[in-house]
Amino acid sequence: MEESQSLNHNVTFFPFNVTVSVPSGSHLLDAVHTAQLPLPTACGGKGTCGECVVRILEGEHRQKQTAAIPDDLSAKGFVLACQTSIFSDMQVYLPQFEEKAISCLIDNILDKGKAENISGRLRLDPPIIKLDLKLASPSLNDNYSDLKRLEQALVKQTQTRIPKFENEHKCEYEYELSALQKLAAAARASQGRITTVSFVSPDRNTIMDIEPAAPHSKNILGIACDIGTSTVALHIVDLESGKILGTAASINQQIKCGDDIISRIEYSRKPGRLQELQTLVIGTINQLIKKAEESSGVSGQDIYMASFTGNTTMIQMLLACDPAYIREEPYVPTFNRVPMLKSCDLDLDIHPEARVFCSPAVGSYVGGDITAGLLSTPMLRESQDVSLFIDAGTNGELVVGNQDWLMTCACSAGPAFEGGGIQCGMPAMEGAIESIALGHNSGINYQVIGQVKPKGICGSGLVDLMAELFTQGYIDRHGKFIDSKAQSRLIERESGPGFLIEAGTQTFWGNDLIITENDISHLIRTKAAVYAACSLLLKQVGLKFNDIQSVYLAGGFGQNLNIENAIRIGLLPDLERDRFAYIGNSSLLGAYLILLCLENWNMVHELADKMTYIELNTEPTYMNEYTGALFLPHTEMKLFPSVKPD
Amino acid sequence: MEESQSLNHNVTFFPFNVTVSVPSGSHLLDAVHTAQLPLPTACGGKGTCGECVVRILEGEHRQKQTAAIPDDLSAKGFVLACQTSIFSDMQVYLPQFEEKAISCLIDNILDKGKAENISGRLRLDPPIIKLDLKLASPSLNDNYSDLKRLEQALVKQTQTRIPKFENEHKCEYEYELSALQKLAAAARASQGRITTVSFVSPDRNTIMDIEPAAPHSKNILGIACDIGTSTVALHIVDLESGKILGTAASINQQIKCGDDIISRIEYSRKPGRLQELQTLVIGTINQLIKKAEESSGVSGQDIYMASFTGNTTMIQMLLACDPAYIREEPYVPTFNRVPMLKSCDLDLDIHPEARVFCSPAVGSYVGGDITAGLLSTPMLRESQDVSLFIDAGTNGELVVGNQDWLMTCACSAGPAFEGGGIQCGMPAMEGAIESIALGHNSGINYQVIGQVKPKGICGSGLVDLMAELFTQGYIDRHGKFIDSKAQSRLIERESGPGFLIEAGTQTFWGNDLIITENDISHLIRTKAAVYAACSLLLKQVGLKFNDIQSVYLAGGFGQNLNIENAIRIGLLPDLERDRFAYIGNSSLLGAYLILLCLENWNMVHELADKMTYIELNTEPTYMNEYTGALFLPHTEMKLFPSVKPD
Repeated sequence: MEESQSLNHNVTFFPFNVTVSVPSGSHLLDAVHTAQLPLPTACGGKGTCGECVVRILEGEHRQKQTAAIPDDLSAKGFVLACQTSIFSDMQVYLPQFEEKAISCLIDNILDKGKAENISGRLRLDPPIIKLDLKLASPSLNDNYSDLKRLEQALVKQTQTRIPKFENEHKCEYEYELSALQKLAAAARASQGRITTVSFVSPDRNTIMDIEPAAPHSKNILGIACDIGTSTVALHIVDLESGKILGTAASINQQIKCGDDIISRIEYSRKPGRLQELQTLVIGTINQLIKKAEESSGVSGQDIYMASFTGNTTMIQMLLACDPAYIREEPYVPTFNRVPMLKSCDLDLDIHPEARVFCSPAVGSYVGGDITAGLLSTPMLRESQDVSLFIDAGTNGELVVGNQDWLMTCACSAGPAFEGGGIQCGMPAMEGAIESIALGHNSGINYQVIGQVKPKGICGSGLVDLMAELFTQGYIDRHGKFIDSKAQSRLIERESGPGFLIEAGTQTFWGNDLIITENDISHLIRTKAAVYAACSLLLKQVGLKFNDIQSVYLAGGFGQNLNIENAIRIGLLPDLERDRFAYIGNSSLLGAYLILLCLENWNMVHELADKMTYIELNTEPTYMNEYTGALFLPHTEMKLFPSVKPD
Repeated sequence: MEESQSLNHNVTFFPFNVTVSVPSGSHLLDAVHTAQLPLPTACGGKGTCGECVVRILEGEHRQKQTAAIPDDLSAKGFVLACQTSIFSDMQVYLPQFEEKAISCLIDNILDKGKAENISGRLRLDPPIIKLDLKLASPSLNDNYSDLKRLEQALVKQTQTRIPKFENEHKCEYEYELSALQKLAAAARASQGRITTVSFVSPDRNTIMDIEPAAPHSKNILGIACDIGTSTVALHIVDLESGKILGTAASINQQIKCGDDIISRIEYSRKPGRLQELQTLVIGTINQLIKKAEESSGVSGQDIYMASFTGNTTMIQMLLACDPAYIREEPYVPTFNRVPMLKSCDLDLDIHPEARVFCSPAVGSYVGGDITAGLLSTPMLRESQDVSLFIDAGTNGELVVGNQDWLMTCACSAGPAFEGGGIQCGMPAMEGAIESIALGHNSGINYQVIGQVKPKGICGSGLVDLMAELFTQGYIDRHGKFIDSKAQSRLIERESGPGFLIEAGTQTFWGNDLIITENDISHLIRTKAAVYAACSLLLKQVGLKFNDIQSVYLAGGFGQNLNIENAIRIGLLPDLERDRFAYIGNSSLLGAYLILLCLENWNMVHELADKMTYIELNTEPTYMNEYTGALFLPHTEMKLFPSVKPD
């Protein structure tokens, strides 16, 4: 045995694809920590909390007897990392980080043709154009170059077939070298019939690809991708129909370098780390492209355009542009407008000449996710009414205004409503409790995404839970348990008292689902940050909440956020309920709209230019607003006349 | 010894940097052949011709006793490859392929300010612009992005300092990602003082590089490079002064895949071979860049522009565009106009964002070397007079015309006047006999480049030798030796009779310098191809030789071509001698002119468009013209009234 202890084994963790070498006999949880992966353990490795559940794909291991994992899962290879030792090379999957569902509202809009529900245009006129051409055959009397014959065919085609080129006889074509390298063979493969793919903008017409005419018409595709601090979500889109062919989402692999942008910027300061962060996010995107390709049966080489949205830090990390100055006063990003790039600049697994669009930021803390998100709201269609847009992600961003003016600010909300930092929290994916109601006899009714045993609670479920606990008197206005009411479900844990939502016998992983006072406090701080920022932003523009005709809430809460409950906990202001709309991942929808037509690309730049950024860090009254909001629903109950605890 | 015979050794050949593995005890000449390198051996490996001389840089070897190498050279490691066996890993230099001298006429033109001697403009206005800028410091009240502050500084600078931008307030800047990645750090390194390098054309202003302001002003450089089938020549140029800082030339490493374009196109047909040819020529160019950098003390990372000239096949191979159809009827190139590229597309060892310009071709057999070469002649300044331009390289190309019209054709001349295929031939480099006169008593006077013992004879020397042999009656009009006259110097060799120019005791390599009847026949075929093409081209445009006011001869003959002798052998027509000018490597000069200003780039495209290409392969009278020219000086002596044999 001594000999085997001197051995090392390689353990590879998916979906991160990170491999570490550890001595034989090591605990698997230690290997996870060696790999610097963010696997939670509330119980400190005692085998009781059940949070460190992993799935062994391959490899010899031994585990202590433990009751924390139900037998059916145990049979499938699920183990608690803290109770498992390593005795060979292993492949291990971390299920917390598996693919996430996207709450996608695009189909709603497209299917119902509700173009008036968004500011962006639903016109299909992408800058990527496919042309089927017939080149003249060369002869000794007509031995123009292949390129000249291509240009003759292009001019002919664009004169007769594409009305928008009619006035552009002077347009000079440009060519990618990789396209020209394919020209001679393509021109001779199919009696001169070829297909070209061009990038067309008002001042450019660049041939990006040339292929021999195929029996079946060639696909031209795009990807729309929202790079969130926590989650990356992506659509593959047919640029000729606007149809979404494939969708995928997953955790942003950068999460191993820090949960939020500040910790990642800090991480990036050492040499080589910025490149590591870039590699991680591009790796995440490429995995999603592969998944979406496989599910839709298309090829990444047919993807000629990519539209990215994300906060300023995410975009700078995507482009390996040092984000250090984003977190240093005076908080200056490298750029707001992002120059158009080519996919080969970033090693994306799509056509190397694909054009990459990143939506513009307003500043260091209001990024392209917000400007693109505004395209997904009807705000810019309003000339009189004033709307409020709230994106409650890891960072919270707010915009107030209409067609004529827009003011914006940001606050550090934290990922609590995306399930981050909450013991029972999880993203809105299969197994998440998405809505909860407490019965009057301590009975609890809930709905789980995918109708399976619950694994945790997503944002909309947490909002419900908080509202129910408060309005039914289980917690007080500070978020502390009222023992007399809650006693039948209160459990004392090292981390303090917790409220039992579901017993381990009824949950997916076999662990009790509990919300602690710490969790509640965390959620209150998050909702307070968002509400205080809203309140302050309105004061800055001389408006009251009641002046706001519409409130658009975006974020990763889950499909069915209960607005009533969001008001009850003081996350949203107490206005008529029909003024609210929950719009899910507005940033991804914005990225999709930019794929559809250059008009949306121009619009997102115009609105970015129009937005005035207010720096909350320099506003002395912000802390007062925040402190006032650290109650349920608020210190000043008169702000929430319709909210009355039981 | 048996054991050592089963060993293999690695032999690396320079300057090709090709390594082969051969069994211990192998002949070095066999290793050269295994490496597919083109080392000549007239005697078939008997150790008598002295052509296969190589220099051992490192490695154990044994050689047979041989008198063919003088002792002083033997002491320096020179051996005959056919007489040497390999007994360890070795490094071997092939001196035939060492760096070549360039006959560069640029200094003449620049120094003397003889701008009227060329059609191109000598104005210094390159499209690469360096700007020293001061960025405003950001503050909480003025926290524009770094890019915005850069744009503010650019607008300010261009309004006050650069007159040509005055009307371009609308010009939108574009940015290379690699420049933006350096922006944040550069803006903070030197109190906001930075240096930008831009590529500026009428419709673009692209920031290619950003650096903190340096104590010494940053260099911005370009390379001008002529890619010949046999030889590649390059200048490094200071784009702010126009000064040539470094120069280098060498054999085109593609030569191992074939001597001429037809054999290289044939070679390229198998999979992977086109990429091999591309790698070889880019390897050649990168070696020259390194040499020129070292000699001038500059850095390749400061090279922001590259101007390439070369025949159509060379340019298509540089860009890895299949040249197969250049040699198949109807002889169609992929393109004539070459799109502008970036150096990173080609893996050149210069700044990765450097812009790459390739001068345009007219057709498959009249390439960018000719269009750029015309910039180096005054032809386009003439509105009345008609000029003839002859580029006698491995391929011969001709242009006749003036400002208003230009006709062109090509002929397959062969590399004889560059020293190729001639037993005693060599390029115009150190050790080459560049001029020869035969005395009346069989005495021979010659000048050697570099005042060393002769190694061989370059083009201008071969022209002299032919003319002298013919006019003094050593050879007849067919190029056959007249025994009665030549007998004292005639030597019988396996390959037929040869005329002794210098005995081995007086030559650098210790081998006799001999010209054979085969060599003479080869030279006659070459001059006949050129003359026949000239004659036919003029007939096509209805002109006679006497209508030509000026004849510009370009090629690799050497610095001091004797025009009188070129007429005597019938290479050039019998016109007044002051109508002729020998202009050396006009293509390299054209590449240099394109670096100087975009006006020359535009001009070379205009003239390319103006040129009408005549396909000699389809002209039934070409063979008659050629056959008539296979005499010294010509079948019809009346065409050469001033030429009279002794």
